[in-house]
Order: sequence, then structure tokens, then C-alpha cells
Amino acid sequence: MTSHVVKTRLERSNTSGLRNEAGRPTAAVNQLSRAKKLAKSLLSERGEASGAIVARELHEVLRILVAEDRSNFQRFLATDFAPDATIVCAAAETYLSDPSAEAAALLAQATDPPRQELLRRMNMAPGGTSALVAMRKEIAGRLRDAPTLRLLDSDLKHLFASWFNRGFLQLRRIDWQSPAAILEKLIAYEAVHEIHGWDDLRRRLAPDRRCFAFFHPALPDDPLIFVEVALVEGLAGAVQPLLVQDSDDDAARNRAARADTAIFYSISNCQVGLRGISFGNFLIKQVVEELKNELQHLTRFSTLSPVPGFRRWLTKRLASTSDPAAALLARIETGAGRLDTPKIDDSETSNGPYLMRLACGCRNPSSLPRRTSLAALRDQTRKRIALVHPLAAPSWTAPANHHLNPTESRFALGLNESFATHYLLSRHGRHSCGEEFSWP
Amino acid sequence: MTSHVVKTRLERSNTSGLRNEAGRPTAAVNQLSRAKKLAKSLLSERGEASGAIVARELHEVLRILVAEDRSNFQRFLATDFAPDATIVCAAAETYLSDPSAEAAALLAQATDPPRQELLRRMNMAPGGTSALVAMRKEIAGRLRDAPTLRLLDSDLKHLFASWFNRGFLQLRRIDWQSPAAILEKLIAYEAVHEIHGWDDLRRRLAPDRRCFAFFHPALPDDPLIFVEVALVEGLAGAVQPLLVQDSDDDAARNRAARADTAIFYSISNCQVGLRGISFGNFLIKQVVEELKNELQHLTRFSTLSPVPGFRRWLTKRLASTSDPAAALLARIETGAGRLDTPKIDDSETSNGPYLMRLACGCRNPSSLPRRTSLAALRDQTRKRIALVHPLAAPSWTAPANHHLNPTESRFALGLNESFATHYLLSRHGRHSCGEEFSWP
Amino acid sequence: MTSHVVKTRLERSNTSGLRNEAGRPTAAVNQLSRAKKLAKSLLSERGEASGAIVARELHEVLRILVAEDRSNFQRFLATDFAPDATIVCAAAETYLSDPSAEAAALLAQATDPPRQELLRRMNMAPGGTSALVAMRKEIAGRLRDAPTLRLLDSDLKHLFASWFNRGFLQLRRIDWQSPAAILEKLIAYEAVHEIHGWDDLRRRLAPDRRCFAFFHPALPDDPLIFVEVALVEGLAGAVQPLLVQDSDDDAARNRAARADTAIFYSISNCQVGLRGISFGNFLIKQVVEELKNELQHLTRFSTLSPVPGFRRWLTKRLASTSDPAAALLARIETGAGRLDTPKIDDSETSNGPYLMRLACGCRNPSSLPRRTSLAALRDQTRKRIALVHPLAAPSWTAPANHHLNPTESRFALGLNESFATHYLLSRHGRHSCGEEFSWP
Amino acid sequence: MTSHVVKTRLERSNTSGLRNEAGRPTAAVNQLSRAKKLAKSLLSERGEASGAIVARELHEVLRILVAEDRSNFQRFLATDFAPDATIVCAAAETYLSDPSAEAAALLAQATDPPRQELLRRMNMAPGGTSALVAMRKEIAGRLRDAPTLRLLDSDLKHLFASWFNRGFLQLRRIDWQSPAAILEKLIAYEAVHEIHGWDDLRRRLAPDRRCFAFFHPALPDDPLIFVEVALVEGLAGAVQPLLVQDSDDDAARNRAARADTAIFYSISNCQVGLRGISFGNFLIKQVVEELKNELQHLTRFSTLSPVPGFRRWLTKRLASTSDPAAALLARIETGAGRLDTPKIDDSETSNGPYLMRLACGCRNPSSLPRRTSLAALRDQTRKRIALVHPLAAPSWTAPANHHLNPTESRFALGLNESFATHYLLSRHGRHSCGEEFSWP
Repeated sequence: MTSHVVKTRLERSNTSGLRNEAGRPTAAVNQLSRAKKLAKSLLSERGEASGAIVARELHEVLRILVAEDRSNFQRFLATDFAPDATIVCAAAETYLSDPSAEAAALLAQATDPPRQELLRRMNMAPGGTSALVAMRKEIAGRLRDAPTLRLLDSDLKHLFASWFNRGFLQLRRIDWQSPAAILEKLIAYEAVHEIHGWDDLRRRLAPDRRCFAFFHPALPDDPLIFVEVALVEGLAGAVQPLLVQDSDDDAARNRAARADTAIFYSISNCQVGLRGISFGNFLIKQVVEELKNELQHLTRFSTLSPVPGFRRWLTKRLASTSDPAAALLARIETGAGRLDTPKIDDSETSNGPYLMRLACGCRNPSSLPRRTSLAALRDQTRKRIALVHPLAAPSWTAPANHHLNPTESRFALGLNESFATHYLLSRHGRHSCGEEFSWP
Repeated sequence: MTSHVVKTRLERSNTSGLRNEAGRPTAAVNQLSRAKKLAKSLLSERGEASGAIVARELHEVLRILVAEDRSNFQRFLATDFAPDATIVCAAAETYLSDPSAEAAALLAQATDPPRQELLRRMNMAPGGTSALVAMRKEIAGRLRDAPTLRLLDSDLKHLFASWFNRGFLQLRRIDWQSPAAILEKLIAYEAVHEIHGWDDLRRRLAPDRRCFAFFHPALPDDPLIFVEVALVEGLAGAVQPLLVQDSDDDAARNRAARADTAIFYSISNCQVGLRGISFGNFLIKQVVEELKNELQHLTRFSTLSPVPGFRRWLTKRLASTSDPAAALLARIETGAGRLDTPKIDDSETSNGPYLMRLACGCRNPSSLPRRTSLAALRDQTRKRIALVHPLAAPSWTAPANHHLNPTESRFALGLNESFATHYLLSRHGRHSCGEEFSWP
Repeated sequence: MTSHVVKTRLERSNTSGLRNEAGRPTAAVNQLSRAKKLAKSLLSERGEASGAIVARELHEVLRILVAEDRSNFQRFLATDFAPDATIVCAAAETYLSDPSAEAAALLAQATDPPRQELLRRMNMAPGGTSALVAMRKEIAGRLRDAPTLRLLDSDLKHLFASWFNRGFLQLRRIDWQSPAAILEKLIAYEAVHEIHGWDDLRRRLAPDRRCFAFFHPALPDDPLIFVEVALVEGLAGAVQPLLVQDSDDDAARNRAARADTAIFYSISNCQVGLRGISFGNFLIKQVVEELKNELQHLTRFSTLSPVPGFRRWLTKRLASTSDPAAALLARIETGAGRLDTPKIDDSETSNGPYLMRLACGCRNPSSLPRRTSLAALRDQTRKRIALVHPLAAPSWTAPANHHLNPTESRFALGLNESFATHYLLSRHGRHSCGEEFSWP
Repeated sequence: MTSHVVKTRLERSNTSGLRNEAGRPTAAVNQLSRAKKLAKSLLSERGEASGAIVARELHEVLRILVAEDRSNFQRFLATDFAPDATIVCAAAETYLSDPSAEAAALLAQATDPPRQELLRRMNMAPGGTSALVAMRKEIAGRLRDAPTLRLLDSDLKHLFASWFNRGFLQLRRIDWQSPAAILEKLIAYEAVHEIHGWDDLRRRLAPDRRCFAFFHPALPDDPLIFVEVALVEGLAGAVQPLLVQDSDDDAARNRAARADTAIFYSISNCQVGLRGISFGNFLIKQVVEELKNELQHLTRFSTLSPVPGFRRWLTKRLASTSDPAAALLARIETGAGRLDTPKIDDSETSNGPYLMRLACGCRNPSSLPRRTSLAALRDQTRKRIALVHPLAAPSWTAPANHHLNPTESRFALGLNESFATHYLLSRHGRHSCGEEFSWP
């Protein structure tokens, strides 16, 4: 502990005092400039000797900044910790004159922004990871207006991709034995089929349901992503029956005992601040393994995933063609928005696969996979329960012992992944669009 | 899961079979070339879709490689995953023409070695972190002869510094309730005062002792660093009494209840593969906090740390000068190697502080701190219990409520940190040298 | 495993089959007679060799019995497992001829009902303890009509008093980190101030509240008794403000930091089947210890407990005397049943202590109502929040460092204990009766 | 808390002071008389209000008593808390005049010794259960000389049988991840095949071994009984190979993967104070279930248990008959005491089953030695590894899916149970006696 730290400790009582007068311009300015000083000090601290203490100090100050000052501080981070131009220039010239591996390494070192090291040191404080994830979430809303923040955003994403590496994630089953502090986050974060309070949640965690989430050790109470699974007999044709409340635990246990199919009916990313870091892929694969181990009579693993952007695409396509599915679409539309959409009769069901092909086609018409199965025609963007077509076969179906070929695999996974990352934002009021979805 | 994975799964039975015939050249060569293919596949895998599975596969193959092939693979890692020269050149030239922050970021991105991304993906497998730490340990012994491995070593160190960030470390108290699987590692890793079996270990964990370690969530059974503390009345003048075995737990509990001083008498880094990543600093600070909370009557926190390189330095210095301490040194030498070194009488004790100043001076004679207190004259390098001078005052002493000034702090911490990192290697038979120790 | 067990295993498939036809008289009768056979077999099993397996079998059958058959089985238990009259007579005569300690022991052994041993063996099955506690709950409702069950009730109570000995209870803090499966039980069991759903519960577990419960290892998810505590500044005059919802966790934390008083504002026994086994006493004492350790600035521990029997006693007393409190009582009555009871003004507040003295006075043996029952200043039976008199001083107030004299202690503890056991039944719609309440 | 408690609190400082002068007669006498007063107070305390506190006080005093005073106190417990003779006489006469169930219940109540209630209240203190179990252990050694203690012993046994009911026991697997505090107890308590320190222990917990123990929640660090299992291919003919140290964990894991047989090669009761309470039976059955679940390829579960009393019985029998096994016995005797006993050749192996039949025959009631004691084919009392006959088939062998007939079952279980309870005492140097062993 240096004398500097001792001093800032004394100031801490002032900090608490200022909490109540945060509106006063002078105090606020002082706090902002103090945050900047602490950031510089954190980076300069020799030997990282007191990094954790300075970092804690810095987070405490940041917490009491008003929104504008916080934004100011973020721009300060984005602009004031660039690599030293002289050094980079020298290293670049060296490399150009002799592009050896060593020269590349030196150049990489020279261009490594001090900003990243500063962020790493901010992570040393208790709660540091959580604060940085929250910072990136805040930045996300300002990127359009403050493009200068993009470098900061990019550095945070780079660090998070490293810190939230699959090797560090912990899979946990979530059930009615889980802490309420975690369960209430499921209610808050569920992005596909809204959870209507605690009774509804209890149904999602009944004995014929499974819920798994990834956690990171530094965010022990905060799931990163979670998936909800229904254990059923035969393929589920629609999501509604899976969401019906049923308080009979014994009956649910019996259903689970007879189940041969696991339907992954909802998956939600939880952290806007971790946007762009991919978890869904790993989660689904590991949950399939877990379920296989627990319930050895399961033979099918399916999803009921909606295809982002499908509806818009379909509407556009059908409007401009004399597609034989046009009539079907009309019928579908009729039932839209209602829970009691009449089941389309058998003769029409034969159009199902075609619809599915359409669904795939909407992504890349020219590369329609030969063997696909997918669907889901819910108007996700408006969060209505409006499954237009209770498809006979769900979106992705594969027997447990059948290994998907690469195309299938990428398709199915891309699908799941996409709508998870996709709808997070739509839930939080921002526009949901299919464009940002990229096929693997 | 791609068909590729399915294939490698089939190969896995071969793998097991090969375990027994690993000596056969053909098979070995095949395994090496397979490891290389898997590494390339791991990096190329689009969307990281099957990263975790390929990574597991790769680690399984690496585990059965013979040492020479493993070394070959490491050189392959070090050399075959350099950044793309064309792209780096272009980015370098762009930067030189306009050294903006954005250009710097693009250049950083261009120079970011694919090797690092590959290592990150190798970390995705279960046990990946542990395998990478072991790989760096293995590399450490080959750096001198294979300088080409330095880039790989440097990338691993860079990743570890990020992954083993203070914010991700977990402090755990270790006592007789800890799992045997962890306790046996204390015996193996203790680098300062050897632990002679389980009975000796039990003494180190008695009610008047404390032991704390940092763990990383990805290495749950493997301490990164641990510190041993003795709770005593008054300052301990020597380390020997602290190591004496005493099986009376009640007496120990009474001593703890009366203790006013905590002596940090041993600190050991455990992972050669994490060399250069600093933990001791954080550990000591947090343990001081823990102890203050648990035992509110503690007023002093001290160490009995030896100064690496001190003896050699002192011998050299005294040989070449007519230093007044020369006579004292002679007397000290007489008692060397014996546990019953007679206490130097009072008139000589007055030379103690001078010795301490010498100890400090040995590092940088010109910058002798005004207020230092430090010592410890054990011949650490040869692991003899040979505390030459049972100093009246231990090496670093500060009352609990006294904040060290920056100089003191850096000095004391540097001291502790240094000998921890220092003696790890000496314990494992490699050359122990004071040179690598750097004052903060 | 004996052949008997093998046989009952084969029968088990029948059991499952019968589950669906439990309504059929023949099957039901068969199940009842099978239960009786299993009970006999359980007791006769030599060496307890297969006790756990037979016991599990028995519980499985009992679970599918219809209510009438279960009742029949309970009467069977109560009547068919009496001690052997011949042996008891012989032992009684031996004792009468020579009343030695040994003869007394033999007589005790002879009179020990086989019923108790049977119940102990029924406890061996997984879930056995829970099933026995549920059985006593069921019996409780039938005791009046089926006095023959009293012996069974008495044996169960005797066993529970031994099994739920204070030494086996585990104190656990309950907060928002607790499993939902436990939290929902607080909502169900709260007997004093109803918890209105999860949001209300969250308030009860806010940072300025504490909740502790006793658990028994054999009932890990089922609290036996829990107490709710509010941390406040100064004495609370009424319970309403303590129940107000307030979602600001930070403000709550600040209040807790300033609190000097802990108000035990609610305590609820949870298990009707454990009626008559005393927990409240121990719980309150240990929670006081816990709070003292956690929050060292607490100086007062109080309750806002109603005094059972007080209201009736007071009415009677005031009716028959020219007591100066009569006028006050009239005013109190005026506000009864309303939440907005006007605060009695200062001049009247001075009567508060007198009311308190009255409350104490009602415990005077000479004026003790023989069947104290319903509650004091609150209309508990109808679960209205109707604290008539927001007492300036709560019912029991003592500084933390003041040891109550025996009279005070017995009064305060009897008070707390009584209303906890008392209101449990009233909550469950059954008649609340004072018989079981005994003034200490 | 009553004023009484306050007073004893003040006295507590004296208690600590007396710890050092426990030898002084006066002080000791005072402590003894204080213990007696506390015992009376504990029983008289109304409403159990302060039972836990008085009980703690009592245990603290008992802990500092010298052995003679403790013995004195135990006699006091055994004699001074008998049921009230007047009441018992009245109840006995009532019963004799009308032997109804109610009269029996009242008589049982009258004869219930206050001693048992006192012991139940002593259990309320933290550590109470442990202290009572230790008390019974101490008593065990004095029963012969002080028959008056038998009533106390009998009451303790009665309570323990209820408290340590199978329904309250917790099965835990013990391995190298278990706390050292528990592992060291395995070393101390192992009663069949001595564990020679920590390295030997590690072998017993290797990947091809299993160890399970029963724990009681009130004795969390103290196993009640534990069993050691070896996973092998084919039946083990002898115990020696199972005890050989082998540090290769991977090889052990491979052996476990191929194993089809689980050999229960050692079972040890740990608590002398719980003598007569049966655990082995339940433990073996539940461990068999656990192993079946974990390792589904196991098809045989066997023991290598010695048969208590077999050797003596066999010697006697063969001496008095012209039994064809006599010659074999002679050969067996020749190899006694040596580890390298030559394997008996095939022609003789055919006698093996006969030997087994003999072993069973020794259980024939008509030839049952009255005081079966020492072990069968191994000289257990002297703890020599001297398995005379490496039997081709172990003592009890049954395929996993074969249900034993009652005779087999009782034999096998009696066998296992008996040697576990049997050898506990012999290990602790006291005389091993067969009285308590009862053939099923």
C-alpha cells in the first residue's frame, strides 16, 4: 500500500458524502477528474503493486458519476490510451524492412493499446468484471452517436472473448432448488417466451422440464445464457402446450419418465455487454450431453426456434411471385395473432416441408440444403404468442445417435445461436432485425 | 458436430490402441501429423462451432506424443501461426501514412498472431487451461536451446496474464479440513521450508497457524501460490521455533488467542508454467485483510523472508572491504548449518540494523532506504536450515494500523514476491540466481 | 435381502398398477391388508436385516391408500402393538415385591410399546421422517373423534421430542440466495403477518431484515420454525411500518448499518405434525447470538408479539373493576379492525406502561384465565392487520447486555413461544385453542 | 436466560482458572459437586427454557474433571435419576387391576427413567452428542467392575439406537478429495487390514477402489462405520494383492473400467460408544446400490471376510472326527503366519467348497461355540497378515442379480456385521469377546 492509497482512503469518506450531493456541478467535475487521475494512476502503478486497491477506488468513483460524466470518462478511455505513435512507427518500419516473426511480435506489442491493459487492471477490483460488462452495455447504446467509443467497445469485446472463453464457463442446472436471486434473472432475461411471474417460472422448472445456464466464476449470480428444454413424448408440433401451466408434479415426473424427445424451446442470452461473444453453440451441445447422461431413453433432440426475419422475407417473396405457397400463407395470416390458430389439414401439411425449405431459402435462396428441417413462424419481433403454423415437425430434428453432417450442423446451430443473440435486443425495446444474423 | 468430428471419434479408438505402441515410429509420426492437422482444423473451424470438441481431440493426441514429438509440435505452434505478412505490411504502411487511432487498431489486429487465437481455442477443452500451463512449464526448460519457442512462450504468458487476472483469483483458507488432494500439493510445492510429510504438514495447519492460497476456477485442485502464517506473541526472532512440531491442539488454540503478531514465514509459487505472472503481492495484502477480520487483536504483520542473493553479495562485499561487519560475519559463519546457532549477544545485536542496511544495500547500494527493516540470512539456495542470525527484529515489520510509505511498501512487497518466484526453480533443481529478481 | 423382500419387490409392479385403480374396493382392501402385513413383518424382521427395504415398501403402500383406509391403518397401529400383558404383569409384580432400580428398568422395558419400535423402523426408509410427521398431522384432526389414536399420537410425540432434540437442529439464515423451494414455504407457513406473494417476501428478506430458521437434517427443505427480524433505529412502535414494501436495497443497507435495535416481529412454527415440540425458545436465543456477532452495534432486542389471552383477560378485568385503564380500553376498541387506528395521544401514551403491567399482571396465577387462548391486541384469528394500539414500547424489551431475571425471562419467552405454536393452527382454519399453551 | 445462568457464566472464568490446578483436591471436589448441581438443574429447568445453556455448562465442567471424578459422576447419573418409586408402584397396581392399553402407557410413562430425559437435555449443547458417545465408550471399560453403570449404559444405548436410526444416517463416498480430518480417522479406525500411513491410505482410495462411510449429522467429521471395496476382474482369491501399493492412477482407472467384481475386503465400526447399534448391514446394502448405479458392468459382489470363531471351531471339530478335511487342515497349518503360503493344488482346491461348507456348518446351532471370538483363517488378534488359505472362492459370493435365500443372506450379513463390530475392540487392545456377537 502506498501513501497515495492512504490518501485516497481518507477521501473515501468524502466520496460517501458526495453521493448525496452528486447534483452539484463542482463536486461532479471533481469526481470526473478524480476518476481520470485514478485511471492514469492505475496504469502507471509500478509492478501492479496496488492495482487492486486503485481499481476499487476507481470503480467507486465511477459508480457515483452522473450519466454525462460517465460518458465523458468513457470517451477519455477510448481516446487517451492509444499506443505510442513513435514506437509504433519505429516498429512498423522495422517490420517493413524485415518482416520476420520477431518483428511482427514486436510490432504487435507496440500496437497493443494501453487501454486494454488499463481495462485488465480495472478488472482486478472486486466486482470489476461485472462493472466492465455493464460499461460495455452502456456504450452499446451510444456507439451510433459517439463513434469514437468504437475502439473502447472493440477492446472490451476482445478482452471478454478471452475471459469468457468456453474453458472458463460453468454449466449449471437451474431448478426450483436454485437461489431466488438467480431465478428472478430468468424472468428478467427470458427473451423468447416471456415468463409471467413466479408461478409461470415454476412451471418452466417442473420435473418434465430442464433449464441449464452458463455462468462465469466472476459473475456467480448472473447467468450468461440459458436454455429451456421440454421433455415430451413424440415431437411437439407447437410451443403453446409446452408453456401451459400444470401444477401436478407427479404427473410431470411421469411424463419425463416416458419422454423420448427433448425440445429446446427457448434460449436467451442475458448480457448485452457480452454481445458478439458466442455461447449458445456450446451450451446446446453440452446440454445435449447432460440430457443423454441423465435420461438414457431420449432419442430425439429438437428445437422450436423461430427464424429471425423469416416472416418479413416470406411476405416479400410471396408478394412478388406466383408461388404455390401463397394461398397457404394467406390462410396462415388469417390465424395470426390468435392462440387458437386452426390446425392446417393434412393436405396442406404436405406443404410443411416446402415452407421449411422456404424458411431456409430466406437466408440464401441459391443454397437451399437438401436435407433440412426447420421452421417456426412466430412474429417474434412483436412478442405476440402467434405461432402461425403448428408444424408437424419442429425446426431441427435429429436422432440422438445421428451425427449431423457439417452443413446440417452449422445450419441448426446457426439457427439457435442467432435467435438467441437476436432477440435479446428486441426484448429491450430496440429494433429486431434479421439482417444482423449471419449464417455460419 | 461435423462429420469431421465423427471421423476423429472413430479414430479415437485407434488412439487408445496406440497408447500401448507409442514407441513405434510410424504410429508416433502419424500422431504428430494428426496433432498438426487438428491444430489447423481448430483454427479454421468456422464460427467456432466445434471448437471445444476439436480441442479435446487435440489434447488427447498431445498427451500420447513422445517428448520429442511434443517438442516438435511446440515448434510448429511457434512458427506456423504467424500473422499474414501481406496484411501486416499493408496495415503498417497505412499506419505510417496516417497514424490515427483507428489505423493503430487495425494494425494491432493485423499483427495479432493466429497463434494466440489457436491457444485460446485449445483452452476450450475440459482441462485445457491445465494443459496449456503444463505446456509452458515444459517449454521453460527448452527456451535456451530452442529460441524459436520464445514467441510461443511469450504468447502463453500474455494469455495467462489476462486469464489469471487478480479479478479471477479465489482466495481459500487451507487447513486440516481441506481435501488431501490439495494438501499433498502443499508438500510438493513448498519452496522455502520443506514440509517433511503429513505430520509436519499437520503442524503447519495447526490452530495457531494459517495458510491461504490463490486458486483459479479452471484449476480447482491446484493452488497457484500459498502463504504460511504463524500467530505468535511478540516478534519471532527466528524461523526454527515456528517449524517445531507440537501436537497439542488446545495449547495451539490458546497461543492463537493470545497472539498479537502474524509472521508470514513462507510463501511459495506453485506453477512454473505461470512464471512471470505476479500473485504474491495480492495474496499477502488480502491475507492481511482476512487476518485482521478474523483476529482483531493482531497488531503486527511481519515476514521472516530471506533475501535472495544476499549471502553471495555479502560475502563478496565483505571480502573486498574492511567493513566493520566483517568480524560479525565471521562469527555468523561459524554457526552456519547448525540449528543451535548461539544468539549473538546484545553488544553485537546493535550491529543487526547495520546488517539489515547491508541486506538492503546489496540490491542497490546507492539508494539505501532510510527506514528499512529486513533480514534473513539463510542459505536458501542450498535449502539448508541455516538461519545464521536469529534477528531480534524480522525482515519486515509494520504495525497493523501503519500505512507503509511507498518506498517501504515496494521494498517489502518486492521482497516477498521475489523470493517466492525465485525459489520455485531452485527447488526443482534448476539454477537459482538472484539476478532475475528485480526491485520494484 | 431375504426371499421375503424379493417377493415384495415383485409385488411392487402390482403396486404401481394399482395406483390407477385405487378406487376399486377390492384393490383398496388388498392394499390395506398388505400394509398391515408389512407393518408386522417390519417389526418381526430379525436383526433389522431388511428393515429399510420393508419400511420403504410400507410407505409406498400407505401413499396409495384412500383416506379411510389410512385412518384404519392408523387405528391398527394404535391398538395392535401394545406391550405383552403377561410380561408386563410379571414385571409389575416383580417390581412391587422389590422396587429396585433394576426391576424398574425391566418394567420400563416390558412396558415399552412395540408400536414405538415399529415407528422407529418406519423411519428407516428414505423420506420416513417426513411421512411420520405427516401422519401425526393427519392424526391431529381425528383425535377428538377417535380417542384410540391418542396412544399413537403420544408415541409419535415422544419419538419426535427425541429426534428433534435441540442438538440435532441446524440454524440457517434465509435470504434471497436461498432456494425457491424453501422460500415458497415461508409464504405458506407464515402464521403472524401473511406474506402476499414473492414481492412481499423479497421485502421480508431485504438487507435491513433477517430471517432465520431451524432445519432438521432429515427434512432438508422443510423449515421447522422461522423468525423474521427487522433492523431499525429506536424501538418500533407498531408492526405496520415494518411490513411496508420498499424496493431500494441500498437504502435498506444504510438503515441496517445505522440500526441499534432488532425487532423480532414474526415467528411461525411450520409443522403441525411437530406440535408440542418446543423450538421457538432455542431459535430466538440463538438468533440473538447470531445477530450480536454479525452486527456489533445492536443494543436492543425486542418483540412485537401479541399476548395470548390478554384481550379476554383485560375485558373481564376492566368490566369488573373501576380500573383507570377502562377509558383507554374503550378508545382502543373503537379503532379495532381498522388499519388507520389513530395513534393514542401523549397523555394516553403514559398509560402504555400500565397496559404493559396489565399484560404482565394477567399472568398472575390468581387471575390466570384457565383456558387462555386468543390473542391480545390484534385480532389474529381473522388475520386482519389490526394492531389496535401501536404501543410505544413493544411487548418485550431488553437491552442486549441486560440479563433478564427469571420472571422476566420466563414471561418473555413464554410469550414468544406461545404465539408461535398458537397461531399455527388458527392459520390452517382449525380452531385455535389455548389448552396446549402453558404459562411458564 | 435466568439469573442462574448469569451466575454460572461468571463462574466460567473460574472454570478456566481451574484447568491448571485440576490436580488440587479441593478444586476438583468443587467441580464434581458443581457438575452434579448442574445435572439436577438441567433436569429441573422449567419448560426446557435454558436447557442448551445449562447443558453446555455441564459439559465444560465434565471436561475438566479428573478420571476418578468423572467415574463418580457417571455413577451419580446411574443411580440418582431413577423413576419415582411411589408413582411407579401406583401405576403398577393400577395396571394389574386393569391391564388396559392406557394403563400400560401410564405405567410406561411412570417407569421412564428421568436419567433418559437428563441425557436428552445433555444432548442439547453443541457437541453434546459427541460427548455422550464418548461417555459410553468410557463406561464400556468399567462395566465389569461397576455393574451399577449398566443402567446408564443401557439408557445411552437406547437413546443412541433411536438417534442413530438408519433414517438419519448419511452415506458419503470417501476419496482423496475428502478432508484430511476425516481421512486420518480411517487410518485410526481401520480394524481389519491396518493402514500404514498416508501413502497406504492413498492406495486404498485409488481409482480402482471405493470407500463409503455412514455419518451422522451431529458428528460431521466422525465416520460411524466405513467399508473398503476393491474393483477387480474375476474373484479375488486373497486379500494381499488388494493391499499392494501401486501409484499408477491411470492403470488403476483402466482396471476399474474392466472390473466385473466388487470385493468388500474390509469393514470397520468406528465408535466404541455406539457398540451394539447395527450399521454394517445397511451400509453394505446401500453401497451395493451405489456401485450398481455407478458401474453398470459389475456383476458380482463378494467379501473376503474372516469367519469369527471358525478356526477354533474347525480345530475342535477336526480333532474329534475322521473328517476328510483333516489332512487339508494340516497343510494349511503348515503355512500359517507366512505371506507366501503355497497355493494348494487343484486336487485340493476341490476341498475348498467343503471348507466353505464347514464354515457354514460352524453356524449350526448345535455346534455353535458359546463364546465365538477370534477369527477364522487369519490370526486377527495379532494383526498379522496371515491368510492361511488363499481360498479360490471368497467367503460370500453372489452374482448381482441373484437374490440370496434367507439363510444365505443372514449368513453373509451376520458374517460381515460380526467381524466389523468384533474387531473394533481387539484393535484397541482390549479383550475381544464374542458375547455381544449374536449369530443371526
